[in-house]
Amino acid sequence: MDLQVYLAEKTEIVNKRLLRLLPAVGDYPQSLHKAMHYSLFAGGKRLRPVLVLAAAEAVGGDAEAAINTACAFECIHTYSLIHDDLPAIDNDDLRRGRPTCHKEFGEAMAILAGDALLTVAFGLIASTKGAAPSAVLGAVGELAKAAGSTGMIGGQMIDIESEGQEVSFPVLEYIHIHKTGELIRASVRCGALLGGASETELGPLTRYSEAIGLAFQIADDILDVEGSSEEMGKPTGGDQKKGKATYPAIIGLDASRQRAAELVSMAIEALSAFDAKAEPLREIARYITARKK
Amino acid sequence: MDLQVYLAEKTEIVNKRLLRLLPAVGDYPQSLHKAMHYSLFAGGKRLRPVLVLAAAEAVGGDAEAAINTACAFECIHTYSLIHDDLPAIDNDDLRRGRPTCHKEFGEAMAILAGDALLTVAFGLIASTKGAAPSAVLGAVGELAKAAGSTGMIGGQMIDIESEGQEVSFPVLEYIHIHKTGELIRASVRCGALLGGASETELGPLTRYSEAIGLAFQIADDILDVEGSSEEMGKPTGGDQKKGKATYPAIIGLDASRQRAAELVSMAIEALSAFDAKAEPLREIARYITARKK
Repeated sequence: MDLQVYLAEKTEIVNKRLLRLLPAVGDYPQSLHKAMHYSLFAGGKRLRPVLVLAAAEAVGGDAEAAINTACAFECIHTYSLIHDDLPAIDNDDLRRGRPTCHKEFGEAMAILAGDALLTVAFGLIASTKGAAPSAVLGAVGELAKAAGSTGMIGGQMIDIESEGQEVSFPVLEYIHIHKTGELIRASVRCGALLGGASETELGPLTRYSEAIGLAFQIADDILDVEGSSEEMGKPTGGDQKKGKATYPAIIGLDASRQRAAELVSMAIEALSAFDAKAEPLREIARYITARKK
Repeated sequence: MDLQVYLAEKTEIVNKRLLRLLPAVGDYPQSLHKAMHYSLFAGGKRLRPVLVLAAAEAVGGDAEAAINTACAFECIHTYSLIHDDLPAIDNDDLRRGRPTCHKEFGEAMAILAGDALLTVAFGLIASTKGAAPSAVLGAVGELAKAAGSTGMIGGQMIDIESEGQEVSFPVLEYIHIHKTGELIRASVRCGALLGGASETELGPLTRYSEAIGLAFQIADDILDVEGSSEEMGKPTGGDQKKGKATYPAIIGLDASRQRAAELVSMAIEALSAFDAKAEPLREIARYITARKK
């Protein structure tokens, strides 16, 4: 299979559905919807929604049952970037090669656009067709937990509190697993749940998701050291400047690369009992450490 | 019935459930959970959760089926206050007689605590026991729509954009209906849905909720002019100082009082086919314009 073709196809499906389900730019209040669309359609990789769809397919499920939830994960991811970029948090001016939401529309708008994307995510899941209501509720619960105070927001909180401080390896892993890993884990699990996964399938898929989630964040840390600002669409080296806890800073670049590669192997290993329908998940695992942005 | 006793009983039930279902103050990250609890247990009126429970009871439903959703509405309400108080939005220092969340814990924490309360709300609904999964999903959808960009956040957006501007009466009603009304409407509708309301019951309950929602915001506007800062727990007169669009500013105090009273009558009238089980809803309607804070 060609992963780039697969990613492009799924991205188009997700973008079309987002446009169909979310209020349009012209809907009142226009300024708010403009800001939401600005950040949502900024050329993101759509990794999380693709994982939702690929996990549903891996267990032989119907992609239609998972598509609204796929869109929900992108809304959550986008809201988290908008809020993280705010002056009171990471104070970033550039994202994906463009001014961040608050730079373009002001802080009040960025706060509200983030809130609105977070809120609509749950509405998208609730409007799922073609899956059992109990599975859909399961997805709502998974996402709320993964994105909440003991998940993604908790990771962001500890990340902020650790800035400029000496950070131990367990704290670093807490930040990475929570800030990035939880949402990636939930995207795979929700896709699997909505695709009708059995308990036997859910275990290995969860191990897969935990491994790629951590690998993804380590790769991100490495890219911030090694990547080009042009390809990343934002100035690289920002982590070090802010005194952020990163893998390269704590265990070095070589050990970080090795750890990411191990995690990718573990992820692929976890899927050994799955057939060709899990090939996209395997390819995504390989892509995570190979990507340049 | 004694409304004060009813409110006190329901408030205790809601507070106990919130404490049971939400992460504790001591849960990691403690600083985040401390900020969430600080704002959630600041002595709010718990009007929205009480409406959820009272609506479930009015249609003969089981309060247990509605209690998690009742808690969810309080989380949403609290998050909206935390974010509205932020320097970039309303820039308020006092709320319920205490420093606002960002004054006490800093802006980054207030943004994240608000995000976490918004997120956990949907997790609370998803964990409902004793109601049909399809009804629970209906509640998730109702709340997401009411709290979203074409609901509460939309109202807040137009409120901000209108500050210091000449505001027409239709824009004022848009702000009030969306910023406050939508969440009150959804609290009644979700309680009714989870209580097993028929379509015949849902119509009048919706009319009731729309009338009290608008009455509540008009009463709030009047209290900001007439109320004592001590009873309100925040400086009154703030709306005028900020050039906020309010009923008294646009149609005058007397006409505002009259409009609120009419809406309360309409609300009670809407419940004429309901029996004694709807008495708490009727009493709440009367209380809305009689309250001093």
